[in-house]
Amino acid sequence: MAPVYEATVSAPVNIAVIKYWGKRDPTLILPTNSSLSVTLSQDHLSTRTTVRASPDFGGDRLWLNGAEEDVGASRRLANAIATARGLRAALEDQAGGGAVPLSQWPVHVCSENNFPTAAGLASSASGYAALVSALAALYELPQSASELSRVARVGSGSACRSMLGGFVAWHAGVAADGSDSLAEQVAARQHWPEMQALVLVVSDQKKAVSSTAGMQTTVETSALFAERVRTVVPARMAAMQRAIAERDFAAFAEITMKDSNQFHAVCLDTYPPISYMNDTSRAIAGLVHAFNAAVGRVAAAYTYDAGPNAVIYALEPDMRALVELLAYCFPRPADTAPEAFYPDPFGLFESPASVGHAVALPAVAALAEATGRFPAGSVRRIIHTTVGDGPRVLSPAQSLLDSAGLPKARRDHHH
Amino acid sequence: MAPVYEATVSAPVNIAVIKYWGKRDPTLILPTNSSLSVTLSQDHLSTRTTVRASPDFGGDRLWLNGAEEDVGASRRLANAIATARGLRAALEDQAGGGAVPLSQWPVHVCSENNFPTAAGLASSASGYAALVSALAALYELPQSASELSRVARVGSGSACRSMLGGFVAWHAGVAADGSDSLAEQVAARQHWPEMQALVLVVSDQKKAVSSTAGMQTTVETSALFAERVRTVVPARMAAMQRAIAERDFAAFAEITMKDSNQFHAVCLDTYPPISYMNDTSRAIAGLVHAFNAAVGRVAAAYTYDAGPNAVIYALEPDMRALVELLAYCFPRPADTAPEAFYPDPFGLFESPASVGHAVALPAVAALAEATGRFPAGSVRRIIHTTVGDGPRVLSPAQSLLDSAGLPKARRDHHH
Repeated sequence: MAPVYEATVSAPVNIAVIKYWGKRDPTLILPTNSSLSVTLSQDHLSTRTTVRASPDFGGDRLWLNGAEEDVGASRRLANAIATARGLRAALEDQAGGGAVPLSQWPVHVCSENNFPTAAGLASSASGYAALVSALAALYELPQSASELSRVARVGSGSACRSMLGGFVAWHAGVAADGSDSLAEQVAARQHWPEMQALVLVVSDQKKAVSSTAGMQTTVETSALFAERVRTVVPARMAAMQRAIAERDFAAFAEITMKDSNQFHAVCLDTYPPISYMNDTSRAIAGLVHAFNAAVGRVAAAYTYDAGPNAVIYALEPDMRALVELLAYCFPRPADTAPEAFYPDPFGLFESPASVGHAVALPAVAALAEATGRFPAGSVRRIIHTTVGDGPRVLSPAQSLLDSAGLPKARRDHHH
Repeated sequence: MAPVYEATVSAPVNIAVIKYWGKRDPTLILPTNSSLSVTLSQDHLSTRTTVRASPDFGGDRLWLNGAEEDVGASRRLANAIATARGLRAALEDQAGGGAVPLSQWPVHVCSENNFPTAAGLASSASGYAALVSALAALYELPQSASELSRVARVGSGSACRSMLGGFVAWHAGVAADGSDSLAEQVAARQHWPEMQALVLVVSDQKKAVSSTAGMQTTVETSALFAERVRTVVPARMAAMQRAIAERDFAAFAEITMKDSNQFHAVCLDTYPPISYMNDTSRAIAGLVHAFNAAVGRVAAAYTYDAGPNAVIYALEPDMRALVELLAYCFPRPADTAPEAFYPDPFGLFESPASVGHAVALPAVAALAEATGRFPAGSVRRIIHTTVGDGPRVLSPAQSLLDSAGLPKARRDHHH
């Protein structure tokens, strides 16, 4: 029986604290400004991808969360696969005839997220990071994760930051070919083990403007965007790296909130205006400022991407009070079980059912009382996670493909 | 019987199309940038004020909408009255003993808006314009409305623009004493008679940040605000005056929408962020862009001040289709009579009850269908008005004070 050439990996989601918004080259996906993100734990949010190469396959095929996609339809996907193949082909040339000609064989790609798409979390970052990491493992590419981040970048800009764990900077670079536009780790997750994150999945009616279309409209029409790129972001990149190096949460939090607000400000300054946050998003931001006032220090920071969901960073000792407040003010939807609304992965509560019923800290309890409760289901679920590592190569037993190279019957591994 | 020294005036509301936000001198109320507004008709939105001076009064007293206010409590009010008195005192000096010493007598001030405070419309502009105009009439001051706008300005910045009708520019000025920070008419209302406005009163829960506090926080914390002041507003002031001179509605509308969006963008870029628009406000803005797309030209423009209410400018021929669309998508609240929700002052509809039931223009009807209906009462009322004139001196018969100089029993003249 012929050997199987296959690799299975998982890759993380990342949430920017200095936002990427605007391309200077839409094909190579070169950004107008550098950005910085926190990689989240793959225990709670990740994409698993299996890639297999075989001379017997009729052509490249891709399955996403169980449904087959048209590989030819996505130029970004084709670019990412072609770039990885090019790196493999170079290896094969160096090896003369000594290497298996994997670069010439079609691939089957099967990819699944461990979080429901319904959560409205962007999966393109973890998805392209998983694809590129799987191809790199399959092709035994010698490049570092940082070098490979260039390949993930051509699939989806923010995917380059998911190629590394911990705290990650995406340097905008200046080269026309994008060779210096790549991700580098600023600090490993072990550097700041207390850092944790909450993802609040916010209900929303309206269809959001796609970030790909939205960011270019901002570049073209916002009168304030150039100032953000020229002076604001460079200063914040430096200040944020300092805050992380010194584990200065107050500084980290203030820059995070200010940059999220400014990203949404330039969206609003776009013509026609773009708005991703809704009234629930804004209420959460207001509650975070009120929480900080109640505890007398900057203990939590919100950030919002191109949608209404909130991500809140806080240190482990402050998480219980924060979750108590949020779950009180944003009650669980009637149709959702307590453990689905807030799975409590770190065992903060006696029982899932007790979440949202009491706020222990007096100052925060007074705030909860004063704020009152929003309609149940305004926040659909709260995902509590930590800072995580980069892409992981998994064992063949975790392959998503069967012996024929087709997707296995899916066992749901959602949380 | 001794002669009565009294004057009664009415003054208009104005809605900025280039926004005033930020003071360079909070005491004299000198702005960081020039602004430009449209004065709205006093038939629908105005403040009426009667001022009487008498040596028999024990001291200055003020009644606002029937309730007495503490004159000493407001420095701005004291400043405005003192400044007007100073101008009168100068006159009396010139006249030697020949003038009645009104500047030395206490005044009673009675002021009423013809629109419910519940409408959430800022009444400080029309209020201070009415107060200063009434004092100017009582004191027989020779200064022009533009010169008197400096006096209104020390009461409330935007009040200086309500001292003139039509299209009004408030020049920021550069002098430290504020002598060159005053309002001037850019064009009379007769210059562009087709221009009309809709005020959509939007329901809102949360208490907004006061504009006085909010604008200074923006000046101090927004990283983008200085760019708006330095480069954006000066260019827009020139372009807006050109658009008005040429009656170029498309240009007028685009600048109006962009400047409203940028004002709210710098509010969001403030730390902590300030947001005045809510989901209903944003839905209205989106609907205006969709309306323009449906009719194939820029036929309507929204603008928002420091609250969720929308003001929409459009030319008379487009108003019916616009009201049909808005009243369809934002149905009348159950507890409001049709004529209170949309009084239809220009007789666009067969009957008040027919408003919101049909959209005639096919492209707009398709848009209404596609948009669907928001919860009834999201918009509480629609005020339809035109461009208006400046403060009017009214007859003694319209005095708000009785023979004793106290407020008459109020006959409600709200619409």
